[in-house]
Amino acid sequence: MENTEKPKKGTHSRKEFLQRTVLAGAGLSMAGSGQLFASPEAEQNSALFFETNIKSKGYAATDESGKLSPWEFERRPVGEDDILIDVKFASICHSDIHQMKGHWGQQQYPQVPGHEIVGVVAAVGKNVTKFKVGDRAGVGCMVDSCMECDSCKHGDEQHCERGETLFTYGYPDEDSPTGITQGGYSDKIVVRDHFAVHIPEHISFEEGAPLLCAGITTYSPLMKEDFNIGEKVGVAGIGGLGHMAVKLAVSKGAEVYAFTTSPDKVEDIKSWGVKEVIVVNDDMSNLGAYSKTLDYMICTIPYQFNAAPYEACVKPYGNFTYVGMPDGFSINLSNIALASTRVNFNASLIGGMPETQEVVHYCADYGIRPEIQVIDAKEINKAWENVVDKKARYRYVIDAATF
Amino acid sequence: MENTEKPKKGTHSRKEFLQRTVLAGAGLSMAGSGQLFASPEAEQNSALFFETNIKSKGYAATDESGKLSPWEFERRPVGEDDILIDVKFASICHSDIHQMKGHWGQQQYPQVPGHEIVGVVAAVGKNVTKFKVGDRAGVGCMVDSCMECDSCKHGDEQHCERGETLFTYGYPDEDSPTGITQGGYSDKIVVRDHFAVHIPEHISFEEGAPLLCAGITTYSPLMKEDFNIGEKVGVAGIGGLGHMAVKLAVSKGAEVYAFTTSPDKVEDIKSWGVKEVIVVNDDMSNLGAYSKTLDYMICTIPYQFNAAPYEACVKPYGNFTYVGMPDGFSINLSNIALASTRVNFNASLIGGMPETQEVVHYCADYGIRPEIQVIDAKEINKAWENVVDKKARYRYVIDAATF
Ligand SMILES: [Zn+2]
Ligand SMILES: [Zn+2]
Ligand SMILES: [Zn+2]
Ligand SMILES: [Zn+2]
Repeated sequence: MENTEKPKKGTHSRKEFLQRTVLAGAGLSMAGSGQLFASPEAEQNSALFFETNIKSKGYAATDESGKLSPWEFERRPVGEDDILIDVKFASICHSDIHQMKGHWGQQQYPQVPGHEIVGVVAAVGKNVTKFKVGDRAGVGCMVDSCMECDSCKHGDEQHCERGETLFTYGYPDEDSPTGITQGGYSDKIVVRDHFAVHIPEHISFEEGAPLLCAGITTYSPLMKEDFNIGEKVGVAGIGGLGHMAVKLAVSKGAEVYAFTTSPDKVEDIKSWGVKEVIVVNDDMSNLGAYSKTLDYMICTIPYQFNAAPYEACVKPYGNFTYVGMPDGFSINLSNIALASTRVNFNASLIGGMPETQEVVHYCADYGIRPEIQVIDAKEINKAWENVVDKKARYRYVIDAATF
Repeated sequence: MENTEKPKKGTHSRKEFLQRTVLAGAGLSMAGSGQLFASPEAEQNSALFFETNIKSKGYAATDESGKLSPWEFERRPVGEDDILIDVKFASICHSDIHQMKGHWGQQQYPQVPGHEIVGVVAAVGKNVTKFKVGDRAGVGCMVDSCMECDSCKHGDEQHCERGETLFTYGYPDEDSPTGITQGGYSDKIVVRDHFAVHIPEHISFEEGAPLLCAGITTYSPLMKEDFNIGEKVGVAGIGGLGHMAVKLAVSKGAEVYAFTTSPDKVEDIKSWGVKEVIVVNDDMSNLGAYSKTLDYMICTIPYQFNAAPYEACVKPYGNFTYVGMPDGFSINLSNIALASTRVNFNASLIGGMPETQEVVHYCADYGIRPEIQVIDAKEINKAWENVVDKKARYRYVIDAATF
C-alpha cells in the first residue's frame, strides 16, 4: 500500500503520519535489511517502512559515564520526503564523546551518538527524487531544518534562521519515537532526503564516513578563507578534524604548518605533504618562533586551551578559525593578546548540505582520504578512551554490521 | 649651555645623559612654567631642563584603593629628542582606574595615571624639529618605542615588534627617576617628540584631551572597517570611548545604533545624530530584535560581560571589534555562539601616532567634540567613583592648573 497522504513539507507531515499510523493500531512490522526484498522496486513499494516505526539497533549512552552499550530502539516510519539508510559504517567524532558525557549540557538517555554515517538507501518516500533504493548515501551532523528561510534555501541549513536546524542526535524531535534524534552508531537511519548526500562509487564507505563531519567542518572554513596557492596555513590539533584540514589545505595548494602535541604523529603528518610539523611543547614557548608568520590558521583542538600563543602565529589582520568544540563551548581569550595580534577570531559550524556534497566529491575525485581504523561495535568504548587520550590515528570507523 | 652630547637615538642616550648629570652632582634646578623666560629661544636654550631632573606635581595612586592623592615627583631631563609639555588638561579614562586598582596586574606605586594629555611645549631637545616652544601638543597612551622596526617605522608604534612600546604610565622606564613612566594627571610631562601630536588652534585644550585615547581608540578600528555611507554601525557602551565612537561613526556617514544600559543617556545620544538608541535590559533579551542587523559593531564596555548577545547583532561574516579592556583583559566567548553568528571577533589597541594626529585634525576640522566636564584635581576621586558608577557625562577633564 502506498502512502496516500497528500504531500506535505517537513516534519509536520511526518508527525501526522506517525500519529495516524498509531491511531490506526497498525502492528509494528519490522523490515530487516534490503535483502528481504526481491528488487528495489518491491522494497520501495513496501508499506512496511512507511506505516510503522522501524526497529533499529545500535550503541547508546545511558548516562554521562562515556560508556556505550547495545540498545534496540525505534525510528520513525519513512515519511514522504525521507529516505531509510542501511548504515554500513559510522565513524567516531570527539563531539560524540563531549555530548554523551554532558560536557555541552544535560542529555536525554538512552542516546545514540554518531554523525558521520554512510550506507545504502533501503527505502525512499514518495516525494523523493534525489535518491533511489540502492544508492550510496551519507548523513552528517544535521537531519532537518525549516527549508524555507533564506539560510536554508541557500545551503546554510546549519544556520537555519528559524532555529530549526535539527542535529543528528540528542535534539528534541517529536517525530522520533524516543523523543530525540538518534545518531549513526546504529544499523539504520531515517532522514529527510535533503540532509543526505551521495557517496560516489570511487570512495569506499569507510573512508567516506569521516568526510561527513571532519571533512566538511574543516573544508568549509578553508574554502571561505579563499587562500592563494603558496600561502601559509596553520593547522592546530592533528586529530580527526585536524588531519583532514591538513590534507585539504595541502591539496588546495597551501604551505601547511601542522601544530601537534603528539611527537609520534610527526612522520604521519609529514607524509601528507606539509611544509613543517611543529611539536608544541608544554609551555607552548616554541610557538614564539612562528609569531606573525601564517596567513591563516584553523584550530581543531577539542578541549579548553590557551588560544593566545596559537593566535599570535597569524599575521596581523589575518583570520583564526576555531572549529574545535571545547567543554561548555567556552573560549577564554585575552583581549590584550587579541588587540596586540590584530587577528580576527572566528568559529565555524560544519557546513551546509551543498558544501557537504562538494567536499565528498572533492575528496573522492582527488584522492583525499582520511586515515582510518575500522573497529567492531564492541570496541567503541576502548576507541573513545583512545580518542580522549589522543591515541586515535586518526579516525575510528565502526563497522555497522557488528551492531 | 647647550647639551653637547653626541646625538643618539632613543632611551639609551637619555639614560646615559641622566647618569652623567647625576654623577656630576648637578643641583636640581626647577624651572617653572614658560613665563619664567623672556622668549621661547631663551627657554629653549636654558640648561635647566636638559641637565637636571624636572620637578613635577600631580595626583598619584599609592595603593590599589582607587584613591589618588597629591604627589611631587621628578621627571627625567629633556633629552635630545624630547619635549617638555606644561600640561593644561588631562582627562580621565576608565583604563586609569582599572590599572591603578590592579585589575590588569600588580602595579608599582606611587603611580600617576592619565593618558589623555594636552598642554603647551615648554622646552625641546636639540634634535627636535617637530615642535617649538609654545606649540600646543598632546600625548596619548604611549611615550616611546623602538622606532626602528617595521611597525614603528610605519605608524603602528603601539605594536612595536620588539615589544618596546612604552605606555604612558606604570611601565618600567629606566630613564624615569621613579623607575616607571608617570602619566598625565600632573603639571608637566617629558616625552619623546614623536609621541606627541599637534593640537590645532581651532579645538580647545579641554576638548582636545579626550581625543588622545577615547578618540583614537575608536577612530582607528572604525577607519579600518572602512564602512560605506549608510551602513549600520552599532556602538555598545556609551561612555567616554563609546560616545566618541558614536560621533565619529555618525560623522563618517554610518547609520548608528547605540546600545546603552543607562536610560538617562538616551536624549544625549539622540542629539548626536544616531539612528536609534537601544536601552539594553538586564537580561539583554531586547537585543534579540537586532539579530544580524548590523554591518559592524564596536564595543567599548570596560568590564566583563556576556558578549554573545551583542555579537549576534552583527550580520554573518561581519566584524565585531572590542576596544573595552575588562578586568584581567579576559573575554569569555561561547564558541557555539561565535560559530552560529559567523561574526569575526577582534580587538584593537589605540592607534599609531600618525593616526592619532589624524583623528585630532579630523575632530578639530569637522567640529567633532567630546562631551566634557572640567573638574579640579581635588575632584578626581569623586569623578572616578562616578565613572565606575556610569555617571560620567561623558569625559571628566582635569584642569592641570589645580594640581
Ligand atoms: Zn563531529
Ligand atoms: Zn531555515
Ligand atoms: Zn584610555
Ligand atoms: Zn618597534
